Amino acid sequence: MRLEVAVTPPYPVFIEKGSLERLASYVAETAVALISDEHVAALYAGRVQAGLEHSGKWVKLYVVATGEKSKSLDSFGSVLRQMVGDGFDRQGAVLALGGGIVGDLAGFVAASYMRGIAFYQCPTSLLAMVDASVGGKTGINLPEGKNLVGAFWQPRAVIIDPKTLDTLPPQEFRQGAVELYKHGLLADPEILARMEKRDFLKSAAAEVMTELISRSVAVKAKIVAADEREQGQRAFLNLGHSLAHALESYTEHTLSHGDAVAYGLLFAAKLAAQRGFADETKRLLRFLDWLQPAPLNLRSFELLKPYLSRDKKNQAGTQRWVLLESIGRPRLLSDIADDELKNAWQYLLEVTK
Amino acid sequence: MRLEVAVTPPYPVFIEKGSLERLASYVAETAVALISDEHVAALYAGRVQAGLEHSGKWVKLYVVATGEKSKSLDSFGSVLRQMVGDGFDRQGAVLALGGGIVGDLAGFVAASYMRGIAFYQCPTSLLAMVDASVGGKTGINLPEGKNLVGAFWQPRAVIIDPKTLDTLPPQEFRQGAVELYKHGLLADPEILARMEKRDFLKSAAAEVMTELISRSVAVKAKIVAADEREQGQRAFLNLGHSLAHALESYTEHTLSHGDAVAYGLLFAAKLAAQRGFADETKRLLRFLDWLQPAPLNLRSFELLKPYLSRDKKNQAGTQRWVLLESIGRPRLLSDIADDELKNAWQYLLEVTK
Repeated sequence: MRLEVAVTPPYPVFIEKGSLERLASYVAETAVALISDEHVAALYAGRVQAGLEHSGKWVKLYVVATGEKSKSLDSFGSVLRQMVGDGFDRQGAVLALGGGIVGDLAGFVAASYMRGIAFYQCPTSLLAMVDASVGGKTGINLPEGKNLVGAFWQPRAVIIDPKTLDTLPPQEFRQGAVELYKHGLLADPEILARMEKRDFLKSAAAEVMTELISRSVAVKAKIVAADEREQGQRAFLNLGHSLAHALESYTEHTLSHGDAVAYGLLFAAKLAAQRGFADETKRLLRFLDWLQPAPLNLRSFELLKPYLSRDKKNQAGTQRWVLLESIGRPRLLSDIADDELKNAWQYLLEVTK
Repeated sequence: MRLEVAVTPPYPVFIEKGSLERLASYVAETAVALISDEHVAALYAGRVQAGLEHSGKWVKLYVVATGEKSKSLDSFGSVLRQMVGDGFDRQGAVLALGGGIVGDLAGFVAASYMRGIAFYQCPTSLLAMVDASVGGKTGINLPEGKNLVGAFWQPRAVIIDPKTLDTLPPQEFRQGAVELYKHGLLADPEILARMEKRDFLKSAAAEVMTELISRSVAVKAKIVAADEREQGQRAFLNLGHSLAHALESYTEHTLSHGDAVAYGLLFAAKLAAQRGFADETKRLLRFLDWLQPAPLNLRSFELLKPYLSRDKKNQAGTQRWVLLESIGRPRLLSDIADDELKNAWQYLLEVTK
């Protein structure tokens, strides 16, 4: 399966079982900086490197620690310095092998090395496959907050091998499933239908996932292509994320992103229902029931409120909310009153306690 | 004087006496991160900040140490973290006030802060006015080498106040004059004619300089606009720089960039003459006589040679040289033999000893 992301310049996303073994055929450059983390490198770096070298590529492997702490200025500087030491020039390429953290770090390395070199992404987590693989966002964290430093840097190609999901822990799979579900809500009811089948997790074999990932990538690719630099409708992808970011900040990221977004999706569904839009709260409740997110350790709306207005995507102090008029019809609203938020929060507390 | 640089997106360069006092009229954004170094900040930051604030802007001043050491990952991270602490969001702007070092650092900060915010440049050195103000190059150094990390990030506007040259040390003025002269060689004999007048330095009042800077910016803007990402004819700007980079590397940057380029221009003129192109060596000798570069502390061509092939702009091992067929007619050659280089080097040693 090959999809085209129509940004500037456009690039292909390949979703193919076993593609990890054939990476050399997707990478044009001869010199490859392969960036991975300890966990993924142990599982896949050996065969990826061997495959590339077998096809005549010159490969250097850079392994960072697993986890968010590798999205730091220190890791960024360390990888760059190693690449200089190994002699990479502007004709080299960076290949990210791993989840979203590796992709974000490696992407910013590619964007910045000698002012930008070729970048390829092999996402190995479901979240990275359906989310980070499209959009061109790269970046690292500062002690003050996440993703505060980075660049928009489009990959030359994204190569997704659904077989890597076999080694993904179930908890990580569920995290990715939240964004997949979100893309269904935004634009593709077929994704919802597949995921709402009783045996979804059991039957989530590579074939099913190839289909679902392809549909999800197509949804995001269409939205991003229409709004490359995040000026307008790309904000739709923020469905569920306004509350999620507030919950993540309040809990200092002890609540996972996927869980936070799931709560955010239910919260947005309630706001929509209150406005007289289609009521999808029951559907979201069932999804949360499947997901089993970690409990909310926050009761007070007053404590949450300050975090709601700090979102980096707010424009000049205006808080914007993405709500669904119905499945597939997102809208951007900036006139949501405090009372509406408070009511929806009350609802969320009641149904999740 | 207003020039347009036709890159994507295009931006204006203003060259106007007293423009530093009227900066607010060029900056659209309300929140401004003013980045400068200790030396320039002491001279100009007070009145720049006051002028911006007087027009209702919200300004925070970030002062880095004067000198190359501020083009580091540490300074980069430090400025970014301070900006987060002060609450800058994506609607803010970065304004660089200073020479090339400040511009390179501030530009990379602007390119990376929350994946890129508006950038304005007020170059206060002649070198920054005629060179760094056009091209979109930003970046910092690694311990392994200069400008190894950065981004192409175009400013929204460049505002040049030739009056700031009044406070520029004569030695710094001469450094900038080398790139000015280079632009004359590449495309504008009128620049050469003005600079070759006996009283050039004495009469280098703001009026003369406004004219010369404008002509020089126009030369570079035209070349850069035709080749934004440095794929082709932008290499012409490298006239004199292949030898210069080698000399700088060999001397570990104790030889200044301007002096190194001046030697490089004479070297390239000799290579051109050897090829049967127009012989401009006498003209370059007079220019070096005016410039009085620091002496060359390197005699052996064999010692220099390895440094000649390490230039980051070389493509896949091929060494490319910019030579002038005649004034205004640069050519790119990749078939220069070692003997030609050796002969030109012998010549350089003889005429400069």
